[in-house]
Amino acid sequence: MVTVVAETLTKESFEEYGTIISPDEEISRMQNLEKGANQGTAIKLLQVSQVENKSTSKVPNWNLFRCFPQPHLNRVFTQGSNQAISHSIKVLEKHPCSTQTFVPMGRTSAEVAYLVVVAKEIGNKPDLSTLRAFTCLGNQAVTYGLGTWHAPMIVLGKEEHLDFSVLIYESLDPDRPEKDCVEEHYSDGDVCIII
Amino acid sequence: MVTVVAETLTKESFEEYGTIISPDEEISRMQNLEKGANQGTAIKLLQVSQVENKSTSKVPNWNLFRCFPQPHLNRVFTQGSNQAISHSIKVLEKHPCSTQTFVPMGRTSAEVAYLVVVAKEIGNKPDLSTLRAFTCLGNQAVTYGLGTWHAPMIVLGKEEHLDFSVLIYESLDPDRPEKDCVEEHYSDGDVCIII
Repeated sequence: MVTVVAETLTKESFEEYGTIISPDEEISRMQNLEKGANQGTAIKLLQVSQVENKSTSKVPNWNLFRCFPQPHLNRVFTQGSNQAISHSIKVLEKHPCSTQTFVPMGRTSAEVAYLVVVAKEIGNKPDLSTLRAFTCLGNQAVTYGLGTWHAPMIVLGKEEHLDFSVLIYESLDPDRPEKDCVEEHYSDGDVCIII
Repeated sequence: MVTVVAETLTKESFEEYGTIISPDEEISRMQNLEKGANQGTAIKLLQVSQVENKSTSKVPNWNLFRCFPQPHLNRVFTQGSNQAISHSIKVLEKHPCSTQTFVPMGRTSAEVAYLVVVAKEIGNKPDLSTLRAFTCLGNQAVTYGLGTWHAPMIVLGKEEHLDFSVLIYESLDPDRPEKDCVEEHYSDGDVCIII
């Protein structure tokens, strides 16, 4: 059995698993908060998250996910404070040929809106010794690195659902679905996250 | 002088200018609301918005914009009801070699969060006879079509700012910035949107 306690998502804490778009964090580090873009009405940061493509597709797809919290996660979570809620991970997946970016829409930046669970690889399987989990705010987007193992999206909070715009290169080859997505399954209770 | 009244953003109303990711609209049209994705916890819609690339870059950039509402727009707007606020458009821009997607983060789906202003082209300039403006919700993302003229992002609402994850192919050639962005400027009051 593997148990991991969820951490707060930051650029540094996630860097071995991918990249994130984290406005509050990035802008709090800026010396000069001059609004240099859009005729003085915006701050612009370039290339904050990396897209990678090893698929045969030329351009990525925009997919829409409407994700529903499971009953035991349909409650308020506060960033940085663990409420000892246990959540079992029954599948991890990876996209061998593409990064995948989840951008949440419709939740405020003050709310803990979703949980990401990631692991590195050993012998083509998730290396559970590297399993980590991160609570994410309503204005943080996450890009899973190319081939990074991760749990399917896990939504947190009292709302009914959370929408994501999701960017990924896909071949969508009905004969070879594994080109886009490989899964690894676990029994209930074998892999647990404490949130 | 050109004056246009802002409309509600829908897939149909925007289709001549680009594509949008509009969860409430798309999901309300679905016959079968079965949660077929993520082990029964999500509804997934494929290829909801199109990415196009005519640049020399192989992969798009993720840029971060933190946009601040101008004082006269720093108030609550309600979708579908016009409050006769006049806003002057002083610049339109286009990206000749790439679509550009703005995904808002941090605002609820009930709120009017931003305004997009678009126009088609005539003789390499914006065709102001095709100028239209759309009010957008906190859970709607917009992809400007390749080469579509548009105003730099205009944020609406009482919050201090609105963050966007923005996807675009860019060459970032310091010697030839016009490869990425061409602008057309107008005098104050020449082009007005009523919101």
